Amino acid sequence: MKIGFVGLGSMGSAMAPHLLKAGEPLLVHNRTKSKADALVADGARFAETPGEAASGEVVITMLADDAAVEDAVFGEGGILKALPKGATHISMSTISVALAKRLAAAHAEAGQEFVSAPVFGRPDAAAAGKLFIVAAGPAEVLDLCQSIFETLGQRTFFVGEEAFKANLIKLSGNFLIASTIESFAEAFALVEKAGIDRHAFLELLTETLFTAPIHKTYGGLIADERYEPAGFAARLGHKDMALTLEAAKDLKVPMGFANHIAERYLTLMAAGEGDIDWSGLGRLAKSDAGDDAPLAPKK
Amino acid sequence: MKIGFVGLGSMGSAMAPHLLKAGEPLLVHNRTKSKADALVADGARFAETPGEAASGEVVITMLADDAAVEDAVFGEGGILKALPKGATHISMSTISVALAKRLAAAHAEAGQEFVSAPVFGRPDAAAAGKLFIVAAGPAEVLDLCQSIFETLGQRTFFVGEEAFKANLIKLSGNFLIASTIESFAEAFALVEKAGIDRHAFLELLTETLFTAPIHKTYGGLIADERYEPAGFAARLGHKDMALTLEAAKDLKVPMGFANHIAERYLTLMAAGEGDIDWSGLGRLAKSDAGDDAPLAPKK
Amino acid sequence: MKIGFVGLGSMGSAMAPHLLKAGEPLLVHNRTKSKADALVADGARFAETPGEAASGEVVITMLADDAAVEDAVFGEGGILKALPKGATHISMSTISVALAKRLAAAHAEAGQEFVSAPVFGRPDAAAAGKLFIVAAGPAEVLDLCQSIFETLGQRTFFVGEEAFKANLIKLSGNFLIASTIESFAEAFALVEKAGIDRHAFLELLTETLFTAPIHKTYGGLIADERYEPAGFAARLGHKDMALTLEAAKDLKVPMGFANHIAERYLTLMAAGEGDIDWSGLGRLAKSDAGDDAPLAPKK
Amino acid sequence: MKIGFVGLGSMGSAMAPHLLKAGEPLLVHNRTKSKADALVADGARFAETPGEAASGEVVITMLADDAAVEDAVFGEGGILKALPKGATHISMSTISVALAKRLAAAHAEAGQEFVSAPVFGRPDAAAAGKLFIVAAGPAEVLDLCQSIFETLGQRTFFVGEEAFKANLIKLSGNFLIASTIESFAEAFALVEKAGIDRHAFLELLTETLFTAPIHKTYGGLIADERYEPAGFAARLGHKDMALTLEAAKDLKVPMGFANHIAERYLTLMAAGEGDIDWSGLGRLAKSDAGDDAPLAPKK
Repeated sequence: MKIGFVGLGSMGSAMAPHLLKAGEPLLVHNRTKSKADALVADGARFAETPGEAASGEVVITMLADDAAVEDAVFGEGGILKALPKGATHISMSTISVALAKRLAAAHAEAGQEFVSAPVFGRPDAAAAGKLFIVAAGPAEVLDLCQSIFETLGQRTFFVGEEAFKANLIKLSGNFLIASTIESFAEAFALVEKAGIDRHAFLELLTETLFTAPIHKTYGGLIADERYEPAGFAARLGHKDMALTLEAAKDLKVPMGFANHIAERYLTLMAAGEGDIDWSGLGRLAKSDAGDDAPLAPKK
Repeated sequence: MKIGFVGLGSMGSAMAPHLLKAGEPLLVHNRTKSKADALVADGARFAETPGEAASGEVVITMLADDAAVEDAVFGEGGILKALPKGATHISMSTISVALAKRLAAAHAEAGQEFVSAPVFGRPDAAAAGKLFIVAAGPAEVLDLCQSIFETLGQRTFFVGEEAFKANLIKLSGNFLIASTIESFAEAFALVEKAGIDRHAFLELLTETLFTAPIHKTYGGLIADERYEPAGFAARLGHKDMALTLEAAKDLKVPMGFANHIAERYLTLMAAGEGDIDWSGLGRLAKSDAGDDAPLAPKK
Repeated sequence: MKIGFVGLGSMGSAMAPHLLKAGEPLLVHNRTKSKADALVADGARFAETPGEAASGEVVITMLADDAAVEDAVFGEGGILKALPKGATHISMSTISVALAKRLAAAHAEAGQEFVSAPVFGRPDAAAAGKLFIVAAGPAEVLDLCQSIFETLGQRTFFVGEEAFKANLIKLSGNFLIASTIESFAEAFALVEKAGIDRHAFLELLTETLFTAPIHKTYGGLIADERYEPAGFAARLGHKDMALTLEAAKDLKVPMGFANHIAERYLTLMAAGEGDIDWSGLGRLAKSDAGDDAPLAPKK
Repeated sequence: MKIGFVGLGSMGSAMAPHLLKAGEPLLVHNRTKSKADALVADGARFAETPGEAASGEVVITMLADDAAVEDAVFGEGGILKALPKGATHISMSTISVALAKRLAAAHAEAGQEFVSAPVFGRPDAAAAGKLFIVAAGPAEVLDLCQSIFETLGQRTFFVGEEAFKANLIKLSGNFLIASTIESFAEAFALVEKAGIDRHAFLELLTETLFTAPIHKTYGGLIADERYEPAGFAARLGHKDMALTLEAAKDLKVPMGFANHIAERYLTLMAAGEGDIDWSGLGRLAKSDAGDDAPLAPKK
């Protein structure tokens, strides 16, 4: 199978190497060409445009946001014009529900297939082939993509024929993570101000009822107040809450927590802290509780 | 050791039997006497007042709320007047931080010892001796209580010399559970309105990142929309959020999530749904998303 | 001066007649042509496209939302291609800050002038020439528009050279009105549930500290529970809060009240009540307080 | 009529002089005796206890909060024991609904009359006899109090036989003022960050739709950023929101705005700014929007 891979950011560059083993050379594209060097050294071929990467049976996109995906698909030298009839675009980026719907419609009109397959997992999970993949699209196309998903992830969940459903679930998952972060942020600010040790509190939580990976990961970052460098930036957390709320608006579903979280991220960004980790809501909660240290050093 | 146990509600009556084995007969008290029948049949002695139950080295209270504890301690025939000097009152109820401070002060003034030891776990965990206990009080007194804690729970966390800290941690834990409930409530309302199956969504969550007992328990109740009978009633969820916010007010810690949850529980109660399970925020989120079914049948 | 007027909805059709008196016949355009009949009978000339209406020195647009304005300006037969160099587009619609910026840039590139001049006032104020106009644009162009503003409104506020500022102020004003509505909604739900008469409460408010027109107008609607027919629909209130929040997001300004109001309007819309008046937050507050009557009759 | 007046703070000391003119010497009491000196010089008689001030037909209390009123009524040397049967206690303080109910019940049991008559207006209005009075109590007792109300205020609103209703209305009014403050705080932060002049914005608002005294007063303070000295402190604003929410909880009325405002005041207080004016929410909104200046100078 001839596969193209567009987007070699921290996630894409950890995922693409898994696809090198296939017989056909992997086509890779990235706006900054140098990021493809290692892959090319290992046998991939550089494609000058997203469209050029889309000349085989499958093209995968793993890009930063809606704008990047729109550009790669609808822009000059884009995927939409280049992808052969019957070939498949697998979109693995975290994008809006609205864009997923637009992509599905545009590819259908062009006689192409479209699958949404966003992932849960950080770059280290991607490098280890341990991602969780949430996939939606026409059943027979998903079957064809199965081997790709098995290469990239530890488990794939098929959630329906309509591609956008995978994106909505991905956004909902990020919303649930951010909710966990904000709830921990508030609880840690509360107990610390009462003189309780942050790490003793964390241990108590994670050894009783709050034993999930997200509790340990984000609870650990918040207990340590280790918000830099960011694994996933606060401003991206804000972006995902905004996408969630956009979908919720279209579906007419009020989401008080999502609203509140979005506002908290915006406050962090206004303070110049958009680049710290999204667990940095812990810093904001502590600051609002009267902590001495200012948020960002003010100019 | 001569032990008294006051409060044979659903939690207390599951805990007290574990204390029967000790040499001295267990003194038990409950406002409704008949609830003590089974324990008396097994060798306990009924005490006519909380004070009578407090005639030994240790008296344990496990009551519904602040008012019940105040009555048992400060009321006529209460514990404060009856407890011998040097003896210990272990308060295991979920009470306010303010009352814990008041109890600590009152017992100290009376030359008695006071320990806060609230628990995490439902009645089935209590019956199995599997509670998690959060204990705070003077170190040497906690040592004496150790065997009692080992009898009642699977693990005890000692969180300091000041009793109120255990209560604050218990309230914070309930706040974190309620946050999990509300976040799931919103996410399920969202995905369901987009046509995604609730149980497929739950499976995806609990087999990837959301693997803690609270995710499975409350996620399950929300996916099933099984809000009756209540394991823990919505109005008690509201009470605990109110206690959390009261402590947060005194400590000057803004808690946006806690505020929002309290408001949601109040909306449930205003709709006549205060007696459904506290996971019933799932019903409210679905109703606010335009679900046809009314909340409670209106009178 | 040759003037075109695009958009004969409830506001536009009340404004346009004031412009008939000028020497040159007024050019009028509306998607549904029949709405222009009365004006044509009074001497206006019908323009088949927005572009045709833009053949003179000034074209005014008064349309429902961003999409309608984008269509009239950038669409086929649109204003951008038709408006002569040096001529002026006065946008009086309530549109987004982002679109105002885009319009300013597009007209500048085309050698045309652009002025934002949204208004405060309902159709009856428009008919009476009593609108308040908030205008922003290049100083010399505003001077030229002065006589038009004097014809349409009782007072014009000039708020700077950058057109978008007028739009931001208009949105902020609508946010302040919606805040007044929500605060009254909550207060009326509270006092009524305590057995206090709604109208006695309103009289007390409006004869003491809350004497502004918005207090009397919206307080009256809420006291009377007179939410239909809508003067301005709840879904439009939601749209304006969304535009406000979009601007706030771009400027990085957290707005807790605006967030909350947007969520309340969304809840109304989810209940099928998007078409009642935007003061209908009063109905929602009463319903959430446990009022017997359901929100909308469910299908 | 023999009248006693208890509480000579900034409000009480501006109100009491109006009552000097009556035939009988006014009995005045204040914890700090020196505050009564001027009144005594003008003919009043100092009462050593609240009870001593309650020896006539009417005793008026104008105190800081629930605790002060409870002390003056139920404490040693208090009003309850001293007030003659059939005499009337007029409570003009801003107190909780719960305390008003308790006072009504206690006085009734003692064969005394009780009237709640809280006021709207600052000390300057009190000094000018221009207060608005909200009165509730038994009709025939209100009749007797009528001349006192006429002496102290420009207008009295009678809102029913149950005293607590006057208190609920007073709290609702303060909630509506605080809502106005928060909405202005957010709007000013928004427009200022877009480069719009605060005073130009204020003028536009107060000369169009927002013409009430509260708009001018609080809009002026926020536009000027003149938060010190406090006319009414932020921590008192917080106290009144807490009392409102307490009443709303008892009545089961969700109030999202009130919740949000309470949280904002708490944030101000956590930052050490509890003593600035309650319009200081303007400072917080600006700070959260990324303003350079820190809130309070941190230690």
